[in-house]
Amino acid sequence: MMPVFYLPDAVAGTIILSEEESKHAVRVLRLDVGDKVLITNGQGLFFEARLFEVHPKKAVLQLEQGYQGSDHWGFRLHLALAPTKNMDRLEWFVEKATEIGVDEISFFVSQHSERRSLNMERLEKIAVSAMKQSLKSRLPLLHPPVPFDELIAKPFSGDGFIAWIDDEVTHHLANLYRAGSDGLVLIGPEGDFSRDEAGRALKAGFVPVSLGKARLRTETAALTAVQTLHVVNQLTR
Amino acid sequence: MMPVFYLPDAVAGTIILSEEESKHAVRVLRLDVGDKVLITNGQGLFFEARLFEVHPKKAVLQLEQGYQGSDHWGFRLHLALAPTKNMDRLEWFVEKATEIGVDEISFFVSQHSERRSLNMERLEKIAVSAMKQSLKSRLPLLHPPVPFDELIAKPFSGDGFIAWIDDEVTHHLANLYRAGSDGLVLIGPEGDFSRDEAGRALKAGFVPVSLGKARLRTETAALTAVQTLHVVNQLTR
Repeated sequence: MMPVFYLPDAVAGTIILSEEESKHAVRVLRLDVGDKVLITNGQGLFFEARLFEVHPKKAVLQLEQGYQGSDHWGFRLHLALAPTKNMDRLEWFVEKATEIGVDEISFFVSQHSERRSLNMERLEKIAVSAMKQSLKSRLPLLHPPVPFDELIAKPFSGDGFIAWIDDEVTHHLANLYRAGSDGLVLIGPEGDFSRDEAGRALKAGFVPVSLGKARLRTETAALTAVQTLHVVNQLTR
Repeated sequence: MMPVFYLPDAVAGTIILSEEESKHAVRVLRLDVGDKVLITNGQGLFFEARLFEVHPKKAVLQLEQGYQGSDHWGFRLHLALAPTKNMDRLEWFVEKATEIGVDEISFFVSQHSERRSLNMERLEKIAVSAMKQSLKSRLPLLHPPVPFDELIAKPFSGDGFIAWIDDEVTHHLANLYRAGSDGLVLIGPEGDFSRDEAGRALKAGFVPVSLGKARLRTETAALTAVQTLHVVNQLTR
């Protein structure tokens, strides 16, 4: 398997790897002159490259012409969720959503939120690693937490949904989402959205949806929503 | 939220909790006489119950008449996968698949398997906890690892699929699975199935499918398959 590097500023030609990446290439992967690697710039481009100079602190890569990755799903998928109390669960979500495919992940603080701050740098690293692992040309955008009302006030493209657990909410996301559209899905905290918050989201244009009969944890609900939009799109291809 | 207990032998009447569960009820949840709890027997029945006698080692519950859970999805969903090298990843899959909904999880050892033995008791506990958490009346059956050839030789009901990464495999599981059918999906180890193994599965009646363009980790592929079958069924409801 060809090793993958993330170089956001990659352009054709030679590039000197950072100290950390040089060490990874030379000491961990034990790459030698001429060995091939794959570069993703996280913005849709791949480059094939060869190791040009072996150096444990400033290894040099020779990049070929970049080409558009064909790994994108063709619509914009945006998930917004309240961070879970347990960080492992949130990190897991970021990893899995990146693997399966998501364009943006936003975090918000709502009435029943159990966590209000996040180590975005750590989440970013997890997304980078999942992008490389799953051979993707795009890195999802991660947005730090904002108040719920600020999030729903922002304009969004396509269909907006709020996964809200209420007896009146009977339509499933799979049945309301229109294949091909951009989608933004809001997933509440462990204690769910308050009725007031749900009401304000509805006023802001979000459609209430169910994710099925099961009572899902926040991170499971969020991943279920991601995969649901992908399957709906797959079925109409 | 009403506390949930798993009592596989529950029948209407009084029941004495095990020492572990008594401790949980009395010391952790601090339940008092008359407090209501929900019982799942893991085989499709719920019971409402009240604490009848508070005792830290043998608390007594008074159960009402059992009733069928309406939480089942109406088709049998069976996932068979090669255990991942990293146990956390496998445990995560068991938790999430149970939450989202699965009837059986089988494990197999194949040519590129990185792990051949499993602590089934621990996986069982994770499934029980996820069943309670997601308010389910059924506990998925977990089967200990068997050789791949033994697994594919067993008769199965409904549609059988093998998620196999090969240029020739272009049909997506979502497009080949028929809503309403029972489904069994085979997910290979980190190093995928060998060509020989895939060939033997095809001969045994399994249909090769893709899970999309992304290169997914074993546990992500397995969860993606579970959610795919649920969405296909949801869309034809």
